Amino acid sequence: MTRPNPSFWQRFSTLTEERSPFCCGVDPSDTLLHNWGLSLDAAGVGHFCDRVLEAAEDRLAIFKPQSAFFERFGPAGMMELRRFIGGAQAQGALVLLDAKRGDIGHSLAAYAEGLIGRDSPMGPDALTLNAYLGPGTLRPAVERAAEQGAMLFPVVLSSNSEGRELQAARLEDGRSVAEYLADHITDYNSITDEPVGPVGAVIGATLGEAAASAVERMPKSLFLAPGIGAQGASFDDVRAVFGDAIDRVIPTSSRGVLSHGPSISGLRESMEKQRDRAFELRQAA
Amino acid sequence: MTRPNPSFWQRFSTLTEERSPFCCGVDPSDTLLHNWGLSLDAAGVGHFCDRVLEAAEDRLAIFKPQSAFFERFGPAGMMELRRFIGGAQAQGALVLLDAKRGDIGHSLAAYAEGLIGRDSPMGPDALTLNAYLGPGTLRPAVERAAEQGAMLFPVVLSSNSEGRELQAARLEDGRSVAEYLADHITDYNSITDEPVGPVGAVIGATLGEAAASAVERMPKSLFLAPGIGAQGASFDDVRAVFGDAIDRVIPTSSRGVLSHGPSISGLRESMEKQRDRAFELRQAA
Repeated sequence: MTRPNPSFWQRFSTLTEERSPFCCGVDPSDTLLHNWGLSLDAAGVGHFCDRVLEAAEDRLAIFKPQSAFFERFGPAGMMELRRFIGGAQAQGALVLLDAKRGDIGHSLAAYAEGLIGRDSPMGPDALTLNAYLGPGTLRPAVERAAEQGAMLFPVVLSSNSEGRELQAARLEDGRSVAEYLADHITDYNSITDEPVGPVGAVIGATLGEAAASAVERMPKSLFLAPGIGAQGASFDDVRAVFGDAIDRVIPTSSRGVLSHGPSISGLRESMEKQRDRAFELRQAA
Repeated sequence: MTRPNPSFWQRFSTLTEERSPFCCGVDPSDTLLHNWGLSLDAAGVGHFCDRVLEAAEDRLAIFKPQSAFFERFGPAGMMELRRFIGGAQAQGALVLLDAKRGDIGHSLAAYAEGLIGRDSPMGPDALTLNAYLGPGTLRPAVERAAEQGAMLFPVVLSSNSEGRELQAARLEDGRSVAEYLADHITDYNSITDEPVGPVGAVIGATLGEAAASAVERMPKSLFLAPGIGAQGASFDDVRAVFGDAIDRVIPTSSRGVLSHGPSISGLRESMEKQRDRAFELRQAA
């Protein structure tokens, strides 16, 4: 397999030193479009994205657009998503598309082709996935990510309460569903001898013991941690969950930044605050 | 809540009598595009869809495009998907978009707005979902489907082997993950007093006992059953799994039809054969 140079992990590590690991969620919801005085359509979404990029300039390492808020407006919304991804990358940032795709066989391979890596039509550097159809189904995405120097983030433990029963269910061998996915992720990461492989995980930062147990099983994964700050997880929670893995955590927040728009200076100030908090989180470890 | 008239179930029941319950999968894969002499791009996908519709005329009750094969070509592919959905509906057919979306809160609501019902930008009559983030997260989609006279198909038991361990894992109360989802689906269906509610399920037809147990728990659900015929499930398997619920089964096949293209007469003949088999399946019960 061609080893891309640099890998997502290498690019992210370099950017993190310069810009912090903070990931800015891009969620052009009705409420935000309304508060920003924008139209509830694809054009409004486009203006929203342009303001976020204008405020960011070269401050942020990584953005996480939520695909649903673009798909809501059909193909025209998807065109704005594509435009945003290119714009963020032109600022030197990485883009993690939060689309939680999952399927089997050729269908999963088709998602991989469309949505993983800068050579793909949609172009993101990383993609969230959903493994309900079994972790073995993700293989074509893992191969594609490794080839493209991209990163995958299957949801292992979501930050919402509705997912806990399912994600805590036990397999015959006693492992929870989350632990089972974590072990498969670690197997996939043996594809590379870099310290961090192409398969990360989404781990809700509010989940305590269950999250810590999953994290331990993924020594070569980068973690996307929603819910730090605005949604209730404190720095202490995050340290308890991630422990020594704190340098492999991408803290992410959407409202923590976007609620300060539409003013460019308001957005910029909140991005800088989140960036400082993200540095602080890492140094506190 | 406004009760749409007619509901998906009513429309599907009428169409089934005239056209059979057979659902034709629409999977413009590389292999098929190549075999049909079409280009591997959005234009090729568009020509592929046009041929399928030309062959179908008014023979089929329902089509199931696989979103991944359209998303593979970015926003241009999504435009072809939108065009196909409109074309199939113009033939009087229903369209079930196989996109397996899943997320939480406002994100799930945004998918619902974009992808559920004829008033949505993408326009399908039904949508497949993924409930790894918890069945409770699907509520906004259920409400939207009920309002629009649309139908949802969360994956409960997938037909592939990689999903079995996860879907068979046990909750603390002893139910399997699949049974747990099935019970939530039945709760959601209390939203209507029609015999079949807005939440169906994907149930692999090859899964025997586990599938029969899930089916029993969903007395008000319509079932999407992949894998009948080409992928190995026989009529006997289907009867064993669905029993008395056989009149709530949508048998679906992609390759069983599409491998007979690009000739219009070849496609048409295989559609008629699948239609006859679907009638036979129902009468055999």
